[in-house]
Amino acid sequence: MTLPMTVPDPALPRRVQIYEVGPRDGLQNEAGIVPTAVKREFIERLVAAGLRTVEATSFVHPAWVPQLADAEELVAQLPLSGPASLPVLVPNERGLDRALAAGVRHVAVFASATETFARKNLNSTLDSQFAMFEPVVVRAREAGLDVRAYVSMCFGDPWEGSVPVDQVVTTGKRLLDMGATQLSIGDTIGVGTPGHVATICDAFAGVGVGVGSGELAMHFHDTYGQALSNALAAIQNGIVCLDASAGGLGGCPYAESSTGNLATEDLVWMLTGLGIEHGVDLQSLVDTSVWMAGVLGKEPASAVVRALRT
Amino acid sequence: MTLPMTVPDPALPRRVQIYEVGPRDGLQNEAGIVPTAVKREFIERLVAAGLRTVEATSFVHPAWVPQLADAEELVAQLPLSGPASLPVLVPNERGLDRALAAGVRHVAVFASATETFARKNLNSTLDSQFAMFEPVVVRAREAGLDVRAYVSMCFGDPWEGSVPVDQVVTTGKRLLDMGATQLSIGDTIGVGTPGHVATICDAFAGVGVGVGSGELAMHFHDTYGQALSNALAAIQNGIVCLDASAGGLGGCPYAESSTGNLATEDLVWMLTGLGIEHGVDLQSLVDTSVWMAGVLGKEPASAVVRALRT
Repeated sequence: MTLPMTVPDPALPRRVQIYEVGPRDGLQNEAGIVPTAVKREFIERLVAAGLRTVEATSFVHPAWVPQLADAEELVAQLPLSGPASLPVLVPNERGLDRALAAGVRHVAVFASATETFARKNLNSTLDSQFAMFEPVVVRAREAGLDVRAYVSMCFGDPWEGSVPVDQVVTTGKRLLDMGATQLSIGDTIGVGTPGHVATICDAFAGVGVGVGSGELAMHFHDTYGQALSNALAAIQNGIVCLDASAGGLGGCPYAESSTGNLATEDLVWMLTGLGIEHGVDLQSLVDTSVWMAGVLGKEPASAVVRALRT
Repeated sequence: MTLPMTVPDPALPRRVQIYEVGPRDGLQNEAGIVPTAVKREFIERLVAAGLRTVEATSFVHPAWVPQLADAEELVAQLPLSGPASLPVLVPNERGLDRALAAGVRHVAVFASATETFARKNLNSTLDSQFAMFEPVVVRAREAGLDVRAYVSMCFGDPWEGSVPVDQVVTTGKRLLDMGATQLSIGDTIGVGTPGHVATICDAFAGVGVGVGSGELAMHFHDTYGQALSNALAAIQNGIVCLDASAGGLGGCPYAESSTGNLATEDLVWMLTGLGIEHGVDLQSLVDTSVWMAGVLGKEPASAVVRALRT
């Protein structure tokens, strides 16, 4: 298999954690409904390829996301005590109850950095969304769970346009103060560029958030082809946890085109070239994404997958 | 039109020159043969969109590249004294003669950084290729022309694997010493990563080549999705001239998949976000690439074009 020549940059982190979102954020935004057994195999293959954090599903109401209506059934089949952490998204306390009953050890909530998206996605407001998340975060932490908080629309919003960095930091900080163990700062519509990434990292560092400790993760979409260069900028600014989706699965219903998440394989290629540890066997991952693209009947979005499929 | 929020990075260059290669490197590697009138319109639209360097065609033997067999006819229709420089590729003295007869003011030669590619592409050797280029470069310079020298396979070679940086620098330096006015360091198969970009920039700077003056340009392919992050790394290392292809046109016959050049639109998006001047009107460029994709009957490779087409 072709691999990049490794030319490390000593200024960069030694290791980056990949938070794999394909089974949840990817499949949630694909048109088809994938059978539970296929989802289980997908997750198992991702873990076998070396991924150590794989967001498995969402305990959202099935009417909202029919693609993930089998959350209980799926989680019951997963190795929750295996080598990988398998977080699930919980939109509210009802979702948390279901997650706790299923024995999940790691949950995530999904907040908005903008007023309009809070209204449209959460039927809430920028300010009052916290009242919804607080009991989820507090109860999850009391139960000993890790709690990730996604903050969406941090680099731009399709209705509001640009989003002030202060507003992003205030939103994220409130979620951390509530007890969240990690933030995932999302460029939900893919409009970000590297200077913007640097500014957001600096602003969080300025209020004491652990950029280099993994407390701050970043989540890029490739709508305008910027995801990997933004990931590079994030790493250059000390970020050590990046979200990615195997094969670039997924899409964003709020952007002008359906391009999905940063592809895990493309990120793995760059990290390998930079000599940054990631723990992933690239060919196993490519094979997994080729198989899943076949299940979905679509061309993989990842350039590495297209180049290395056999 | 959606545009990124501009968040400049004061450490980066104020302006980057885009060397547009779509009409030559792009169309040369597309399957179909485009009519001369369409090529002329393509070039005129690229110039109207603000691009100030557009490589127009190649005076290669028509049997080798039938896509560009109309070079004389095309160049005769171009505004060679207009606002944009319109370089042409010349593979040898015969090509230079044709270019000079056509009144071209800017030519480019195409060298190899590796033994195997020199043999396969030039029917020469790493060392003896210079004997072929020297009279071209010397005579072109005597005629007052600018001469760009492409150096291909600088980041890896499909037959040899990794390519020593010293070999790249030695090859490039010989072309400059011969009289070439600019080098374009090519990642012909798209395997490069940012640390590798930095190392090559440093190595050229170490032998006195003007990285920040535009004497060193870089040319990335997106085979593994790395082109834009490598472009970012290049800019961060002082490079102020980058090659790109409108719509991501083109491909590489020597790589495992047919992905093409860095898409000009994706680069323009990043530069805009970084507050780096580029002079291009993005929507005009997108419209041009949408039109050309229609002519070629293919989906545009550029994410920005797919997102912003109307």
